[in-house]
Amino acid sequence: MEIGARAVIFGNVVGVDAPHGAVVTDAGRIVWVGARADVPPDYSAWPQHDMQGRLITPAFIDCHTHIIHGGHRAREFEMRLQGASYEAVARAGGGIVSTVTATRAADEDALVAQALPRLDALLAEGVSCVEVKSGYGLDVETELRMLRAARRLGRERTVRVRTSFLGAHAVPAEFAGRADAYIDEVCIPALRAAHAEGLVDAVDGFLEGIGFDNNQIARVFDVACALGLPVKLHAEQLSHMGGCALATKYGALSADHVEYATDADAALLAASGTVAVLLPGAFYTIRETQMPPIAAFRAHGVPMALATDCNPGSSPLTSLLLAMNMGCTLFRLTPDEALRGLTEHAARALGLKDTGRIAVGLRADLAIWNVETPAELAYRIGFNPLHQRVFGGLT
Amino acid sequence: MEIGARAVIFGNVVGVDAPHGAVVTDAGRIVWVGARADVPPDYSAWPQHDMQGRLITPAFIDCHTHIIHGGHRAREFEMRLQGASYEAVARAGGGIVSTVTATRAADEDALVAQALPRLDALLAEGVSCVEVKSGYGLDVETELRMLRAARRLGRERTVRVRTSFLGAHAVPAEFAGRADAYIDEVCIPALRAAHAEGLVDAVDGFLEGIGFDNNQIARVFDVACALGLPVKLHAEQLSHMGGCALATKYGALSADHVEYATDADAALLAASGTVAVLLPGAFYTIRETQMPPIAAFRAHGVPMALATDCNPGSSPLTSLLLAMNMGCTLFRLTPDEALRGLTEHAARALGLKDTGRIAVGLRADLAIWNVETPAELAYRIGFNPLHQRVFGGLT
Ligand SMILES: [Zn+2]
Ligand SMILES: [Zn+2]
Repeated sequence: MEIGARAVIFGNVVGVDAPHGAVVTDAGRIVWVGARADVPPDYSAWPQHDMQGRLITPAFIDCHTHIIHGGHRAREFEMRLQGASYEAVARAGGGIVSTVTATRAADEDALVAQALPRLDALLAEGVSCVEVKSGYGLDVETELRMLRAARRLGRERTVRVRTSFLGAHAVPAEFAGRADAYIDEVCIPALRAAHAEGLVDAVDGFLEGIGFDNNQIARVFDVACALGLPVKLHAEQLSHMGGCALATKYGALSADHVEYATDADAALLAASGTVAVLLPGAFYTIRETQMPPIAAFRAHGVPMALATDCNPGSSPLTSLLLAMNMGCTLFRLTPDEALRGLTEHAARALGLKDTGRIAVGLRADLAIWNVETPAELAYRIGFNPLHQRVFGGLT
Repeated sequence: MEIGARAVIFGNVVGVDAPHGAVVTDAGRIVWVGARADVPPDYSAWPQHDMQGRLITPAFIDCHTHIIHGGHRAREFEMRLQGASYEAVARAGGGIVSTVTATRAADEDALVAQALPRLDALLAEGVSCVEVKSGYGLDVETELRMLRAARRLGRERTVRVRTSFLGAHAVPAEFAGRADAYIDEVCIPALRAAHAEGLVDAVDGFLEGIGFDNNQIARVFDVACALGLPVKLHAEQLSHMGGCALATKYGALSADHVEYATDADAALLAASGTVAVLLPGAFYTIRETQMPPIAAFRAHGVPMALATDCNPGSSPLTSLLLAMNMGCTLFRLTPDEALRGLTEHAARALGLKDTGRIAVGLRADLAIWNVETPAELAYRIGFNPLHQRVFGGLT
């Protein structure tokens, strides 16, 4: 039975401290949540949906993706496994350059068409909101086209899209050795143009030896601040570059990857309320061995999110259930931590206050599962037990 | 368009050395395969199915599963992540004991009902054949019930089921410290009874410090030989116990897991034509760091298969595409090796000569994918690009 504008939904509601819970939704919002026995009689005439004890969680939120991109890099994946060196892969046109080339060659329709099957895979697992980054254009026109394509995804499907401008992702070939010029001549103008077109919800960067340095990122972030846009950062992924310190100086929504973050970084993140976004799909794919400092994050109370990092190079992952399993298996998160990482903390990493929890006044974005506990969601590998997705109160 | 009894299917056929290939099927068998340009005119009046360049592979075969079992172990997964010791988990009723208890408590219908969603997840990825082991009954009645449930799966769905009797999986509590008595009083009688009922296609065992020793496994294998049944073995998973030597002495179809196998073992496997079945889902879940000796297997020409090991403890995995990705990412197989591991070599691990390749005379078990190359199947994580599954010539 479809869930309509008004509904009383019974099940094992996450956060309700009773075996039988209920959520009441009205016009896309949650208007009541609690124990089934306590549902106010006012709602007794509303349509009732008994989920037979199924687990009801907030809908999932993928707070870090590069889901808009041209082409794929399966050939490069294969070459590496056949023993090719990074240099040989690069000579064959591999690496991020190949994605930039394919993205520049794709028009908006093509970018949307290529992303939709990936998006559909996410939605099939109860996702209500997806963050999408630019960063494979690296010229003004293509960066804008990526963001327009990202906005289109939100019209093609019942999903909320949050965009992050990631012009500071890589230095394109035509600016090789001139990263500062790229920032001035492309990245910042593209940011201003994208913002003027209403295409930017946040500004991101890649602070790394193979990316941009602290000064370059700071200049982009200064523009973001001037435009009133929140920032986030790919930080301490491959080495410790001071990304957490930089991000928190700007009150960043999130610092992402953070394998090489320190205890001091954890303290900074906690103090600024910055979310640590963990990306186990990339950790797994590049066979990283440096674990993010989970114990320090816990000790300092850093909110931890989980996301797919869906991208064609280091994380061709389109499953938040797998990110959840990997977060537990590889990073030793508990299932409850992992679930909050896909919901409450993911919302926070996007600056969204109206979703990510099952609470009165928030959007009725729910996932209803053929399992009894969050542990069951985290434990299985490659199995999708979604029963129903509720987006803005509707199935 | 559905594929019927006779069909000419055009696409990028694995093994056909031409960009445009064709497979002709008749009454469930492959009757012709080659370049599209060479299709004999005799077939021109048969229904033509143009797959638009899609990749056509043999259907996948999952050659090692414990898909029939009662209950799940999500609570144990969670307890471990919350820091519980193995002892604490055991005290709480966890470990294989809990699966044995749940399996004994489930009737045949319940075992089938619980397995079907897992089986459906496999089939959705183009699987045509699934091996299913007993081994959670550990009493005569429940071992037989597991195998009857396994056979039922092959009637409930369009899939071929191959059973392996795995009475020598663990020593049940009632025989604690009396493994030899368990072998004599339960395992061998159960094997004879199951065989008499036509329930056994092969005989398996678990040779390990926490399983059975060489003499005990040999006694079970001797009975298998006397009954004319082929054997296979869980070998060298957690330590080097001489499993490859034992298995090859009996001409085993496969030696499975084999992380601790040596170069000498690889030579033995090659000489006996025994398949090394790699199970990266278990390697990943238990965070094993000992890699199977892939280089030695290659050097000696050991056929390598990949499977899910779908089981409620060490590998709750229901995706051969993920096994393929893990085989490449974790074990450094090439995509072509991984694909042969899911098809040709998986068939061989089950002693099946009529499937696993696209060749004249074999069963028309095919998978048609929305990708162009095998590398694309291996590269993505948590994405199912299946276009159509063909089982015995029919969609
Ligand atoms: Zn990223
Ligand atoms: Zn097994």
